Amino acid sequence: MPTNEPSQHIVTSYDQELKRLRAMIARMGGLVEQQVAESTRALVRRDTDLAAEVVARDGEIDALEREIEQFSVRLLALRQPMAQDLRLIIACMKVSQDLERIGDYARNAGKRAIVIANQPAFSSMNGFSRLAHLVQENLKGAIDALVNDDVARADEVWASDEQVDDIYNGIFRELLTFMMEDPRNITAATHLLFVAKNLERIGDHATNIAERVHFAVVGENLPDERPKADVSAYAVVRAPE
Amino acid sequence: MPTNEPSQHIVTSYDQELKRLRAMIARMGGLVEQQVAESTRALVRRDTDLAAEVVARDGEIDALEREIEQFSVRLLALRQPMAQDLRLIIACMKVSQDLERIGDYARNAGKRAIVIANQPAFSSMNGFSRLAHLVQENLKGAIDALVNDDVARADEVWASDEQVDDIYNGIFRELLTFMMEDPRNITAATHLLFVAKNLERIGDHATNIAERVHFAVVGENLPDERPKADVSAYAVVRAPE
Repeated sequence: MPTNEPSQHIVTSYDQELKRLRAMIARMGGLVEQQVAESTRALVRRDTDLAAEVVARDGEIDALEREIEQFSVRLLALRQPMAQDLRLIIACMKVSQDLERIGDYARNAGKRAIVIANQPAFSSMNGFSRLAHLVQENLKGAIDALVNDDVARADEVWASDEQVDDIYNGIFRELLTFMMEDPRNITAATHLLFVAKNLERIGDHATNIAERVHFAVVGENLPDERPKADVSAYAVVRAPE
Repeated sequence: MPTNEPSQHIVTSYDQELKRLRAMIARMGGLVEQQVAESTRALVRRDTDLAAEVVARDGEIDALEREIEQFSVRLLALRQPMAQDLRLIIACMKVSQDLERIGDYARNAGKRAIVIANQPAFSSMNGFSRLAHLVQENLKGAIDALVNDDVARADEVWASDEQVDDIYNGIFRELLTFMMEDPRNITAATHLLFVAKNLERIGDHATNIAERVHFAVVGENLPDERPKADVSAYAVVRAPE
């Protein structure tokens, strides 16, 4: 098939480029998952060295977002993709923006872990480990779904955010109680509240990614409303009289 | 010039489409600015009706993000734009994602305003008004820059986030003190902390938008480091002994 060769070559190279784009997202996703895991570990174990490493590593994530954007723009300009390929490339750009934001949350948690290490200890830190584990699972699921065009996996992640909200609501209430017990707990509790909220937001971003994957593969949006149980914005905890 | 007409017509229609895209972003930006302004006003004036309106209006913003994405994808597929046009369309998609997130922050502030209305009053609410005003200005500047390809305006916004951080750091410390004065202030103070943090993040998103505009117009990124003064993640406030 010598006459086919040039065109075959072009098609193959285009396929390689799409594969490379997915690999870039997988790499960025893996790095972001690691940052989420390590910032939480640093927090729970009061490991300020590990926390500082997380803070320092954030630049790599920002660089990856730019790389993905540049590569995507090049693909759009040179390949003029249509339909599903076009949706995939758009999804990758948007997902890289979600991942960059998740990276910011992890860096922020790393900074706070450094402060909290010198503050009174909060006894219920295992809620944080559970929350971090769950959002990491969701994040990993969403990225795997993107890399493998796996709609079922994406839909699964989309439906499972409710559990994240339940754990977050529990932590929120416990931390308010911790503050009320002793004003010396307030600094630690405040930083922990932000870390918990960041983890909950990371869960939201994982859900966003799952929605984007669904749209990229199927070409239609998931319904507007998803199971949602974060009621903490409405929470009131009574101070002891 | 009858022979030119069809091609002229196509070009004009393409220009119209790009104009329409910019108009969509301007509309979304205007709506988001309004949400930020009204959620803060609701908070400061303890106006729960206004807060509920903000919460209810968030769906419009989500719908606009989807509209902008669909229109952009259509433009990419049908017009196969190059260079600056391509960068503009990508920027619009990414900016709509930033605006959607800002809308979420405003909705969240609206929810919290409803709770705070029934809690002890925090005396220094004018910090919130100042912070909201400033991030709104930056948001407006960034959107105007996008709509008018105004790099100077974008760079101005990019450089002015420092002031946002200064006000935020002040509010953070005041709220921690407010909590320490009386445990009955803790619920209100916690919600207010999140609202302040949300406003600070809105400022960050405005800066992101400014960066995207710079890149879209100039084709090169702004430097990695920008003036940044948010040290609140490291803040420690001592409880009175």
